[in-house]
Amino acid sequence: MPIVELHLLEGYDKIQKQRLSVALTSAVRFVVPAAPDLVTVLIHETPAQDYYRGGVPRKPAPARADPEQTVRSFLDEMAVRALEKAQARLAPGFVMNFPGAKPMHALQELIEWAAPRYRFVTKTYEGFDALQGAGDAAIVYCRGTLSGEWPDGTPFGDIRFIDRFEIVDDLITRQDVWNDIAETKAQA
Amino acid sequence: MPIVELHLLEGYDKIQKQRLSVALTSAVRFVVPAAPDLVTVLIHETPAQDYYRGGVPRKPAPARADPEQTVRSFLDEMAVRALEKAQARLAPGFVMNFPGAKPMHALQELIEWAAPRYRFVTKTYEGFDALQGAGDAAIVYCRGTLSGEWPDGTPFGDIRFIDRFEIVDDLITRQDVWNDIAETKAQA
Amino acid sequence: MPIVELHLLEGYDKIQKQRLSVALTSAVRFVVPAAPDLVTVLIHETPAQDYYRGGVPRKPAPARADPEQTVRSFLDEMAVRALEKAQARLAPGFVMNFPGAKPMHALQELIEWAAPRYRFVTKTYEGFDALQGAGDAAIVYCRGTLSGEWPDGTPFGDIRFIDRFEIVDDLITRQDVWNDIAETKAQA
Amino acid sequence: MPIVELHLLEGYDKIQKQRLSVALTSAVRFVVPAAPDLVTVLIHETPAQDYYRGGVPRKPAPARADPEQTVRSFLDEMAVRALEKAQARLAPGFVMNFPGAKPMHALQELIEWAAPRYRFVTKTYEGFDALQGAGDAAIVYCRGTLSGEWPDGTPFGDIRFIDRFEIVDDLITRQDVWNDIAETKAQA
Amino acid sequence: MPIVELHLLEGYDKIQKQRLSVALTSAVRFVVPAAPDLVTVLIHETPAQDYYRGGVPRKPAPARADPEQTVRSFLDEMAVRALEKAQARLAPGFVMNFPGAKPMHALQELIEWAAPRYRFVTKTYEGFDALQGAGDAAIVYCRGTLSGEWPDGTPFGDIRFIDRFEIVDDLITRQDVWNDIAETKAQA
Amino acid sequence: MPIVELHLLEGYDKIQKQRLSVALTSAVRFVVPAAPDLVTVLIHETPAQDYYRGGVPRKPAPARADPEQTVRSFLDEMAVRALEKAQARLAPGFVMNFPGAKPMHALQELIEWAAPRYRFVTKTYEGFDALQGAGDAAIVYCRGTLSGEWPDGTPFGDIRFIDRFEIVDDLITRQDVWNDIAETKAQA
Repeated sequence: MPIVELHLLEGYDKIQKQRLSVALTSAVRFVVPAAPDLVTVLIHETPAQDYYRGGVPRKPAPARADPEQTVRSFLDEMAVRALEKAQARLAPGFVMNFPGAKPMHALQELIEWAAPRYRFVTKTYEGFDALQGAGDAAIVYCRGTLSGEWPDGTPFGDIRFIDRFEIVDDLITRQDVWNDIAETKAQA
Repeated sequence: MPIVELHLLEGYDKIQKQRLSVALTSAVRFVVPAAPDLVTVLIHETPAQDYYRGGVPRKPAPARADPEQTVRSFLDEMAVRALEKAQARLAPGFVMNFPGAKPMHALQELIEWAAPRYRFVTKTYEGFDALQGAGDAAIVYCRGTLSGEWPDGTPFGDIRFIDRFEIVDDLITRQDVWNDIAETKAQA
Repeated sequence: MPIVELHLLEGYDKIQKQRLSVALTSAVRFVVPAAPDLVTVLIHETPAQDYYRGGVPRKPAPARADPEQTVRSFLDEMAVRALEKAQARLAPGFVMNFPGAKPMHALQELIEWAAPRYRFVTKTYEGFDALQGAGDAAIVYCRGTLSGEWPDGTPFGDIRFIDRFEIVDDLITRQDVWNDIAETKAQA
Repeated sequence: MPIVELHLLEGYDKIQKQRLSVALTSAVRFVVPAAPDLVTVLIHETPAQDYYRGGVPRKPAPARADPEQTVRSFLDEMAVRALEKAQARLAPGFVMNFPGAKPMHALQELIEWAAPRYRFVTKTYEGFDALQGAGDAAIVYCRGTLSGEWPDGTPFGDIRFIDRFEIVDDLITRQDVWNDIAETKAQA
Repeated sequence: MPIVELHLLEGYDKIQKQRLSVALTSAVRFVVPAAPDLVTVLIHETPAQDYYRGGVPRKPAPARADPEQTVRSFLDEMAVRALEKAQARLAPGFVMNFPGAKPMHALQELIEWAAPRYRFVTKTYEGFDALQGAGDAAIVYCRGTLSGEWPDGTPFGDIRFIDRFEIVDDLITRQDVWNDIAETKAQA
Repeated sequence: MPIVELHLLEGYDKIQKQRLSVALTSAVRFVVPAAPDLVTVLIHETPAQDYYRGGVPRKPAPARADPEQTVRSFLDEMAVRALEKAQARLAPGFVMNFPGAKPMHALQELIEWAAPRYRFVTKTYEGFDALQGAGDAAIVYCRGTLSGEWPDGTPFGDIRFIDRFEIVDDLITRQDVWNDIAETKAQA
């Protein structure tokens, strides 16, 4: 105990079902202090011809992409300046909020804004947290440290950061960024 | 569809079951793009005398406190300097990471660290995100804006912040804080 | 086999559940040629606090009245001219179709129409059939024989009839009547 | 809610399962005033090797033919005088009751009886109602209007009729017919 | 896994349900090599008004007495010569088969048969095995050692024995006894 | 009722599932006095990718061999002196207890012990009882009669015997034997 039985329309693959099992296990453990091993998840896939609402069969909706994976890919693409690929992950109306910056909507805008601030920056990840929000957006948090070079070539490192992403229909709609860059500069 | 059936040992109250239903609904929607209304959760409570492993009946574990509520209470208590109550929510080994500060372990330490930085600060919440982590800790994020007065009495406001909390066995084990205070000062 | 498990919100009484079991058993036997004894129905009542859609608990809707019983009561009341009671069972917009008559909407209209046709008439029931239609209406059929006296006092009997009723929200919206009165007169 | 789970031995096809889902949905709605869309039917097919009574596996019984379809085919065949095909749908002991006629047992008998009554008659269907009776018979009602020509060639139309059929083991055992032919003649 | 869900009519007590859980756990482990702790048993008690076969509710049958307990009580009563109580546990037609004896039907018969063989005998139990047979009888095995005194007062001990009992409708129908008494005497 | 639903990881064959159904049916009937035909067993096989504990999929364990069959084969092999095959069915540490003999560990030991006791012996089986014990061992009982020849060539027959076997991990760990040989000799 606890045992979770999930009835799904047939059509989800092994990885999607594993993601479901992990999310359901966490959902239970969020309230019930059971060791993970004691949380059983059973997935029952129902062929479309065996499921009816109002006597009418229904089609399964394709699974969402893994939002954490979407964010990881986006960050990787930004790291190597694969801007076109990164851009393809953004929803119309996408907005980025960086420390001390006005809301930005285009990746090029971000690159221009960053140019006078550091020559380059690299993210080292400490952890990701991902969850479905109450509304349509999935939320992905990513935190760790930044290292790179200031405009004058001085190296920096170990600067804490956290990013928060909202993903709707597999596209990133919003990115909020916090970090200790200003604090570090102030202390320097 | 999807339908989640959760088998639980009897002994959870209405609020705990609602929390479970919300967490399970989000878990499903994290992978399956179903409108919330189409995600059904059925909770089956099993009396202790009807559940056995190895032929031996088992006792239900008391539900965890709502970690988001724990964090809200902690933040409220800190806001009104109810330090004793706030302290009671911290686990042994508790650690706080604030921008530019060394890891702190005691609330008094934080108060002393903050004293030269601002006269007071008030948090306006924009949102909370809470989830069970893969390990034992539940994670609570809280974000919004800070307002208050600098040491010289000048008011400030609208400074973005985000806090990340880890909660184990209903006690806060860790708080990480990011904000735009240094950025704001630098721009001032 | 077959086994029907019905999950219902708690709040239906013994008679309503028996009606469900009979209707579900017939539904299965309509397609699967199982002897009645081999059709098992298990009703699982779920307390309101254990059922959620979109993380929101739901209330059970009160059961419908038994439409066959509604029709039987209506027919009994008509038989003893308890017109007020009978009238209370009719929906606004109620319509009656009798052989050779224009659609009628009021019970008084029917009584006036019948006056020159027979002194009185009594129904002997051979059987009722009741089912839920595809739309909102439940359908009740009632068949048997009529006996009574013609306007001149001559008795008649054994005249076949069938009535078809539609019931929506426990009120009768339509009555269609067929019988062999004209045939009988023609043969006389 | 309500949710119907039907456990069946494997071996029913898509159309038979759809018929089951429609019948079960109606059965629930006969008692519980749920919108059709809120009635979920889940069919669980059990392979023969996974179902046992008394430790002995069982074989699924082939599904019944759709009794409404049986009646529609019978009526179509009668309409085009495909008497042999129509006859094949009748059980031994079949009986027909027409207005003012003695019980008839053979289709030829009906044709002879009808000959002096009308040159031909065509049915326009307004609706069918079909259900499983409490016993072995499925019941099918068919209602609508008759049009055709009287023996003297005068056309008629819009004469209400209703037929009631009993079907056992996919064969029609009884047909009861009511209509307004005599009423119409009397008014003419 | 494995998980056993047992649907029962309401009306079994805690001890009867525990017995069921132990028997079901053993049944699974008889085929599947799962550690006992990994075999989950969930008992779902169905109120009589929620269970129907053929649309008719059914009554639960009272649980059988624990056949092992019946045998233990019988053996205890025989040990203290509470013959009336012991007799009450025997079915009409009860038969006993002892080494070298003709089938006996009455306890008194046994006592007379034993008289010249030993002054008294005491059973020390090594173990019981109990199971439901394929037919109506439950089977209980009891094995261990006998000690006592020969007719001449010489003590004996450590003589192996095994008893096999059949129990139908809570009454013992048959007892088969094997032991090493003759072997021991032969070796003496 | 009762209905047993067994959830198993996919991977058991028809015969193993039948054995499970028989064992589960007997387990229920051990407590609930239901006729075998009224005990329904439904086996739900879960593909490995649909079952998780702690969010981790699990593998099914191969089924145990049928312990009764193991014992029958062992006895058959002993009967025809296929000692190598019989030996392969014994666990390290195997022990045999025969009437009046010290515990023996090797089949050869048994043969030598028996040599002076009878020329040969044949078992006629009256019945087997098999069950899973509370620990790891399955228990198999076998009873019936012995016939054969004494060392001097005199035939004997109809001597009752019972054997009790313990089987762990498909290997026999223990055999206990009781019979009336000594009693028969004593009476001779």
